[in-house]
Amino acid sequence: MTKQNDQSFIDQLTLPEKAALVSGKDAWYTATLERVGLKRLMMTDGPSGLRKQNTNAAVTGINDSVTAVSFPSSALTASSFDRDALNQLGHHLGKAARVEKVGVLLGPGINLKRSPLAGRNFEYFSEDPYLAGEMASAYVDGVQAEGVGVSVKHFAANNRENQRFTMSSDMDERTLRELYLTAFEKVVKHSHPATLMCSYNAINGTLNSQNKRLLTDILRDEWGFKGLVMSDWGAVADHTAAIQAGLDLEMPGKGPASTQEIVDAVNAGALSEHDLNRSVLRVLKLVSDYRPESETVEKYDLDEQHQFARKLAGESMVLLKNENVLPLKQGRSLAVIGELAEHPRYQGGGSSHVNAYQVVTPLDAIHKADAKAVYEAGYQLDSETADQKRLDAAVSAAKQADQVLIFAGYPASRESEGFDKTSLALPNNQNALIDAVTAVNDHVTVVLQNGSVVLMPWADKVQGILETYLAGEAVGEATWDILSGDVNPAGRLAETFPIRLADTPSYLTFNADPDHENYREGLFMGYRYYDKKQVPVAFPFGFGLSYTTFKYANLQLNIGSDSVTAQLSVTNTGNVAGTETVQAYVANKASRIEKPVKALANFAKVTLQPGETKTVSLTLNQRAFSWYNPEISDWQVDNGEYDILIGTSSQDIRLQATATLDWPQAAKPKVTLNSYIGDVLALPEAQAALKASGLTETFAALASGETTDQQMLLNIPLRSANMVGATQEQLTQFLTLMHEL
Amino acid sequence: MTKQNDQSFIDQLTLPEKAALVSGKDAWYTATLERVGLKRLMMTDGPSGLRKQNTNAAVTGINDSVTAVSFPSSALTASSFDRDALNQLGHHLGKAARVEKVGVLLGPGINLKRSPLAGRNFEYFSEDPYLAGEMASAYVDGVQAEGVGVSVKHFAANNRENQRFTMSSDMDERTLRELYLTAFEKVVKHSHPATLMCSYNAINGTLNSQNKRLLTDILRDEWGFKGLVMSDWGAVADHTAAIQAGLDLEMPGKGPASTQEIVDAVNAGALSEHDLNRSVLRVLKLVSDYRPESETVEKYDLDEQHQFARKLAGESMVLLKNENVLPLKQGRSLAVIGELAEHPRYQGGGSSHVNAYQVVTPLDAIHKADAKAVYEAGYQLDSETADQKRLDAAVSAAKQADQVLIFAGYPASRESEGFDKTSLALPNNQNALIDAVTAVNDHVTVVLQNGSVVLMPWADKVQGILETYLAGEAVGEATWDILSGDVNPAGRLAETFPIRLADTPSYLTFNADPDHENYREGLFMGYRYYDKKQVPVAFPFGFGLSYTTFKYANLQLNIGSDSVTAQLSVTNTGNVAGTETVQAYVANKASRIEKPVKALANFAKVTLQPGETKTVSLTLNQRAFSWYNPEISDWQVDNGEYDILIGTSSQDIRLQATATLDWPQAAKPKVTLNSYIGDVLALPEAQAALKASGLTETFAALASGETTDQQMLLNIPLRSANMVGATQEQLTQFLTLMHEL
Repeated sequence: MTKQNDQSFIDQLTLPEKAALVSGKDAWYTATLERVGLKRLMMTDGPSGLRKQNTNAAVTGINDSVTAVSFPSSALTASSFDRDALNQLGHHLGKAARVEKVGVLLGPGINLKRSPLAGRNFEYFSEDPYLAGEMASAYVDGVQAEGVGVSVKHFAANNRENQRFTMSSDMDERTLRELYLTAFEKVVKHSHPATLMCSYNAINGTLNSQNKRLLTDILRDEWGFKGLVMSDWGAVADHTAAIQAGLDLEMPGKGPASTQEIVDAVNAGALSEHDLNRSVLRVLKLVSDYRPESETVEKYDLDEQHQFARKLAGESMVLLKNENVLPLKQGRSLAVIGELAEHPRYQGGGSSHVNAYQVVTPLDAIHKADAKAVYEAGYQLDSETADQKRLDAAVSAAKQADQVLIFAGYPASRESEGFDKTSLALPNNQNALIDAVTAVNDHVTVVLQNGSVVLMPWADKVQGILETYLAGEAVGEATWDILSGDVNPAGRLAETFPIRLADTPSYLTFNADPDHENYREGLFMGYRYYDKKQVPVAFPFGFGLSYTTFKYANLQLNIGSDSVTAQLSVTNTGNVAGTETVQAYVANKASRIEKPVKALANFAKVTLQPGETKTVSLTLNQRAFSWYNPEISDWQVDNGEYDILIGTSSQDIRLQATATLDWPQAAKPKVTLNSYIGDVLALPEAQAALKASGLTETFAALASGETTDQQMLLNIPLRSANMVGATQEQLTQFLTLMHEL
Repeated sequence: MTKQNDQSFIDQLTLPEKAALVSGKDAWYTATLERVGLKRLMMTDGPSGLRKQNTNAAVTGINDSVTAVSFPSSALTASSFDRDALNQLGHHLGKAARVEKVGVLLGPGINLKRSPLAGRNFEYFSEDPYLAGEMASAYVDGVQAEGVGVSVKHFAANNRENQRFTMSSDMDERTLRELYLTAFEKVVKHSHPATLMCSYNAINGTLNSQNKRLLTDILRDEWGFKGLVMSDWGAVADHTAAIQAGLDLEMPGKGPASTQEIVDAVNAGALSEHDLNRSVLRVLKLVSDYRPESETVEKYDLDEQHQFARKLAGESMVLLKNENVLPLKQGRSLAVIGELAEHPRYQGGGSSHVNAYQVVTPLDAIHKADAKAVYEAGYQLDSETADQKRLDAAVSAAKQADQVLIFAGYPASRESEGFDKTSLALPNNQNALIDAVTAVNDHVTVVLQNGSVVLMPWADKVQGILETYLAGEAVGEATWDILSGDVNPAGRLAETFPIRLADTPSYLTFNADPDHENYREGLFMGYRYYDKKQVPVAFPFGFGLSYTTFKYANLQLNIGSDSVTAQLSVTNTGNVAGTETVQAYVANKASRIEKPVKALANFAKVTLQPGETKTVSLTLNQRAFSWYNPEISDWQVDNGEYDILIGTSSQDIRLQATATLDWPQAAKPKVTLNSYIGDVLALPEAQAALKASGLTETFAALASGETTDQQMLLNIPLRSANMVGATQEQLTQFLTLMHEL
């Protein structure tokens, strides 16, 4: 049989056949070419569970999806800070896809959470590119190890939903490289995803689906991507321009119109067959590599996947506050309040929506463990106004209970793909309920269900807060595992929880303009912003409590030739076993550039029995000490001092040491006519040349730099140093000597 | 006699003579051409008083300057919010210059105060471009009415001192136009300054001295500037490129080398004689227009100017806090503490430094009025560490006094032209003194002398705070005028006083990079930032107390064809006469763009006797309702709602009304294939076309937009509306109908 992905196979194809291949046959399939025996490949949504639909189902409907396990959303799984867990999740998803004859799983979404208002944050991992990249890479490895391809999305800088088809994400090159492309770069280089999904938006005015710099120059030529680029659904505005830029597959197809427009473009000379063939070959390779060949019916164990969903959710939930209220005390009466306990929100809307296998609500799980627990709805979900009857009943129940759980969160109508939020507040009726209940009971724990950041004006009034995000179908069991103490919480926030919406880094500009989103905060996004601006937050990035405590000690650094390794010991100083997430941040003191106070460079999980000590080793590679220098179009590392900060959160640094780099691959300081007298005088390697040229003497009066006049004169470049007595001959001699170094 | 500024005169000149004219003869003069009888014109520093130097004095020295009255610095005069006062200041400066045979006064500096750390802020007016423009225009009118030219500086976006010769101020076009060019535009259009001084820095990578877009396209072609552009001292890096870009006069000259390089450039064909002649003509015109012809010795009254300096300073000082402690109570004992009372800081360093005529210190003025007032230095100026002996003596004096004045501020070493500050804190010894004195006396007033913003961690501990900035040589008299109650304070802050340095808008990036200053905050600078981010401040823009109180009432708006007039009444509701500064801000609710909460659009001063009421009328012109649209390279006004806010400060809005604009000159909403379904459905003028094309029916199911799915689908552009059932025919018909409107 002829291989269906080589040049000789392409040569058999007619132009209309080739044209048919570069658009989807419909919403979920590539084209079938019966004449040459080419079968279709199916793609399916589902970063958190399969959403395999009937071919003729509406793009956004969920009714016609097959049953599948609804796993926790990425907002929650990222909080695991657990590469192994994400890898296992990928295996489960890949297995389900393979069994369902799905060739490509559309996910994961790995965009950064620039604004907590962004509608699709629940589908994404983090505000931090290192964490997002690590989580994504582990996930992709898992899926693809099952023989199913992924489509890593949404490439790139797709950080808002409003006007997402046309808006431009405008930012400088460093911000693009150091934040918004970083996770994609890691996944491409480390995990070789079968496909990337090009996002709707533009970057700096060029629509991503027509952005050659993004889709070819960076993705393929720089990063070495060998896979296929497909469009987000409806993202192609000009199919010819898209193919020329490096987009291979338009999704979904527009039917015969899609084929015809390509045929016409080739016939008119607007599109070369060379460019078309390039994309056709990539489509054929994808089908060849990932279309399930076997017609045998495979099965997989949904119950086993459900149990994994429970375990993953439990290990990822983040305990934000605990004033000795959790685990719940056995033998004391419990009131469960909040409609979300009965009708939990466990997954997001839009393309990630799954037809779940077996939802266990928190109320189910609680009643199974404690049949006497009293339940009151407390509020009406999907309403802002208090339901007085429900509220009164809840308060009454709370009065009589020893301990209270309030389930609160965003209703589904608040957050979905396709539009952005305008507020981070919970519905008024929920906040009012929490106020009313905390007024009558001192032992209240709030359990939150939400796709992204919520404000907690009542945080000081409650004793416990458990963030469960969108926990998947095992939400009830996983929540109870934590509340009961069967699982010791170990999740950490993968995003900052601010005190006020106005405190968020992109607040000045987010959704201000329908056409342009200015990334004015630049590199100062997420904790990089709050750190630098010293803005207090509700809960910082990397934060999460445990039922035990950990002690850090004995930090030692080992500076290698292109990495630094930090070694330290962690001891469980409490009474129960627990898992700690050790985080390593790097603070660059060396480079004279805009830079955050610190950035996450590695992390590790360590599980310890009470009293047990383990050594943790964290390698920080050269990228952790590098910045993207647009002037050389490359990453640059500068020699000098870097503080290595070891913490249990971004704001709770336990150990610190300084690495002084002196790497031969580092950039050399350049001395030119534009160098300033003060800088040159301070440069050790310039002293000999200064002396030889006589400039040491000429500048002698300035060198102390104490008075205002001296300070002013030190701030003059060599170019204008004639104003302070330097001669052209001296300067020429000095620069000649410097360049000979 | 031949006119020395026409073409026929130029035709007489040799190339070396022409070349000699486009550089300064030396630091302060244009070239003399003896052969053709052309005399030199003198320029002199001095926005706050003449700094006329001997020709051979060092550029930065002050010893050789003539004696002149030191007027308040611009930081203080801007706080007057008084156009008439600035105009009078201009007249005084112009007169002094004319008498001293100075042709061009190098000032005023009108750059915006982007960061309070910027070293030269004391020379500048405000963080607000409207206020800066109004102050500058009034000042320039005054100087030039005396027959002396000005050089308005530093053009443009020169907002930091560090690396000022080479750094690039990087910003988007709206920020450049709506903030950093606005004051220059106003002065050029309204006051026709003889010259502009081109600043050292680059904008978006192009050195201003070689920036044709700035110096020719915008300045001359757009704004109609007819004068000469000179360089800041040493700002020319490439003289040929500078002349080609529209810079006419290099300052200072580099001697024969300057002439030779131009001769060589013309001979080599690198510089056309046409371009050279253009600049030569402008130099000749400047000399012709502004070189004082008369050889008669004129005189001016320095004592009269001193009295004006006192009046201007008194009217500009800003009373920031007054818990019934000011005016000082007569007959009660007074302790005066702080070396700045004896050795006041009354002017800035660098090119604005004046050899003052008659300095009256605060201590002199106080002792003249109250011979029994006790004085203690309290601290050593120019030191950070407390002098225990001085501190003890001050505390002891404070214990025994009924009321205490503490004079505090930045020593001269802290702020000057040529370098930026790194902190906004007062020296430690001064803060320690205030803490110690407030611990023993409840009636403490702090009098501040500083070029720009200071932090006041002790603000809650003192009863009074008077901001006197750098008040000029009459500092003592003017300060006493306020403290004694002879003058009722009426000054208003022309800049925001933040609580913390980290709160300032440009904190993330200011001076982070030697080569680039990213204006990342964009339009959100000054109060525009604090307003929008809801960041609390110590004292807001526009704030200042009086010894009386004012009531605002009866706001009425009159919408004209290209302006809106606000009329209101102000009543003095207190017991002493006083002057109120009524401020009008516009809040744009109409435009879908990044925008501040509000922006100053006009202001007026009104002086009222106790019980008196006056009507104040403020015209807000079309610019107040416009934004710069880079896509049309022009200012755009949008129809819709604008709130008109009338306040006594930016944060104390007393009256408010809404102006709904429906101007024919306003921009029309454009409907294209990139328009979103939701937007189109909401557009009244689109309803007929929607219906006719059948789209009303097609989109009917989306129109209510309640569920998440509907919201997502409304956020799809017409371009992709096939995904929700629209046909190509419907869309074409709809757009055709819309374009016919």
